[in-house]
Amino acid sequence: MYQYNYLLNFTKNVFIKMGCSNTDAEVIADVFLAAELRDHTSHGMLRIKDYYQLWKANRINVNPDIRIVHESPSTAVVDGDNAIGMVAGSKSMKIATEKAMTAGTGWVSTRNSNHFGIAGYYAMMALKHDMIGICLTNANPLVAPTFSISRMMGTNPIAVAIPARNQPSFVADFATTPIARGKLAVAEKKGEKVAYGFVQDKDGNPSDDPTILKTGGSMLTLGGDRLHGSHKGFCLAAIVDIFSSVFSGANFGPFVPPSVAYLPVLDKKVGEGTGHFFGAMRIDAFQTAEDFKSKMDEWILTFRSAKPSEGHTHVIIPGDPEREAEERNMKEGIQLVPAIREELLEIAKELQIDFK
Amino acid sequence: MYQYNYLLNFTKNVFIKMGCSNTDAEVIADVFLAAELRDHTSHGMLRIKDYYQLWKANRINVNPDIRIVHESPSTAVVDGDNAIGMVAGSKSMKIATEKAMTAGTGWVSTRNSNHFGIAGYYAMMALKHDMIGICLTNANPLVAPTFSISRMMGTNPIAVAIPARNQPSFVADFATTPIARGKLAVAEKKGEKVAYGFVQDKDGNPSDDPTILKTGGSMLTLGGDRLHGSHKGFCLAAIVDIFSSVFSGANFGPFVPPSVAYLPVLDKKVGEGTGHFFGAMRIDAFQTAEDFKSKMDEWILTFRSAKPSEGHTHVIIPGDPEREAEERNMKEGIQLVPAIREELLEIAKELQIDFK
Repeated sequence: MYQYNYLLNFTKNVFIKMGCSNTDAEVIADVFLAAELRDHTSHGMLRIKDYYQLWKANRINVNPDIRIVHESPSTAVVDGDNAIGMVAGSKSMKIATEKAMTAGTGWVSTRNSNHFGIAGYYAMMALKHDMIGICLTNANPLVAPTFSISRMMGTNPIAVAIPARNQPSFVADFATTPIARGKLAVAEKKGEKVAYGFVQDKDGNPSDDPTILKTGGSMLTLGGDRLHGSHKGFCLAAIVDIFSSVFSGANFGPFVPPSVAYLPVLDKKVGEGTGHFFGAMRIDAFQTAEDFKSKMDEWILTFRSAKPSEGHTHVIIPGDPEREAEERNMKEGIQLVPAIREELLEIAKELQIDFK
Repeated sequence: MYQYNYLLNFTKNVFIKMGCSNTDAEVIADVFLAAELRDHTSHGMLRIKDYYQLWKANRINVNPDIRIVHESPSTAVVDGDNAIGMVAGSKSMKIATEKAMTAGTGWVSTRNSNHFGIAGYYAMMALKHDMIGICLTNANPLVAPTFSISRMMGTNPIAVAIPARNQPSFVADFATTPIARGKLAVAEKKGEKVAYGFVQDKDGNPSDDPTILKTGGSMLTLGGDRLHGSHKGFCLAAIVDIFSSVFSGANFGPFVPPSVAYLPVLDKKVGEGTGHFFGAMRIDAFQTAEDFKSKMDEWILTFRSAKPSEGHTHVIIPGDPEREAEERNMKEGIQLVPAIREELLEIAKELQIDFK
């Protein structure tokens, strides 16, 4: 078991050694550890190696000049200068909240960025300003549109954070696929099959094989098949992609660059880097802040007390499981699986940082 | 077969006889006929009777004073004064586009409204201004959250319209449930079962019975069950509800008033009427309009030419089927099923309007 602060400091030191400023390394470490605390381990310490290898391959910029390249009173397009996604992401969300201060809402589309960890982190940045936060991102292509066998989209997540008064905030953060890619990796390691409705083989046949992506298969959109609404999942993934890329001038769909160094840079570009989209809305742009938060409390309490189905005790409000995990992991510590610990020991050795 | 103009004029006359202004009646008729043309017949002429009966029961206001009650440079809350939803909706979307003219984006949450027809209509209003349009609405409760047997939400649709240059616009308009409620009614009339994954019985067991809502059953959210991501469909439906109601001061979730006169007014209110949410974003708030539209063309062509799976010829871009239906129905005419024609003949007789 590792203490939160130990892993936070270690992560910060890794990125400082890679050449990041102290401030940038702090933000990056904060996002990684937020993923660990919230049990989104697929975006936690597991991914440090990916960023380290991208840096070694000279594929990410640790001293970026992130700037606004186009704007209106409530919008901006940000060029991330090939920054580590967390640095471009947190700066972009900060610009969105600043726009919202004066215009009521702020909307930022960001190009020329990279993988930025959990989308929910940026949406939640709005909460401390009494704002609603929104964050979308495209990602490298694994998912096929309805009626297709081509990998055209990432798991393109949607995150929305809404403040309440006495109740904890509503925080939704979900991929627009039935499951996260990480669940396929877990099933593969255990030698298990997965349920139907998650993936298809290279010819578009239903599959329960978690390794199918290695043989030309693809993930399916939320809904699974056309009968059960996969075209709606496709709409969602498409909207996330367009807001992140067409708005900003980033690469879209199949042209989003890989977030790992073992995959080659793509031949064709249709824009700059990976794209994200951020929104911030002052709650007092709609109601007085107190009215808004009281009503949000009432909404949460109403839904939490809906009649549960057999075998369940209550309805789960989006954000509840992650908040409970945060409290538990902060208290009890964070467990790393041996393979990840080995990777981190190796990186620590190469960068001459203490790690046990 | 009816000609488009014949039904448009008839519908306009029905609402003029009910006391609407000429302008309001034109908008209402335009939304009803847009639904018919786009093959969203569940929101077309079928529903005129519902509005007529709500009017006879004195439950909707045909001479509303619709006004902004709260605003910021990019936002407004609109009170619909219990208007027919189309009147409050089109006025609210107009305010959103006006806000966007100066602020880059405009966001309106509307309370004290009623059922407004197809959400896509309002999102598409933005297109002629070279804006992206967004529209959400809550609706009377039929849908259970994951792990619950209570009907807490409507089929809460999401509509997003995005302009392109030479390609037709991208127009997504979909319920956050696997199927629309109308499909249950169709299966019931045919005496057929439905697929599993759409509804559950009163105890939360999976069901294939399209009449299950009559015996305490409920619809499921997109994803169908927890394993296949129903909690993500719940997140979506919840976000639509909160943006439409908590933002505006409308009723939320289980308290959204019925859109038909044969259901009684609810005992408990937590706000005013039904709620909607509208967004408009100038495309040139992000890119030059020409760059944006060219890139959107490229996005559409890329996705349309993704490799189809067996039995399919191409990927369907959101909005394609509705646009093809519009062209066909405008040319060939609109078919009404006998039962709906009978209803309209009855209304025509009562209001002394010509209808054949």
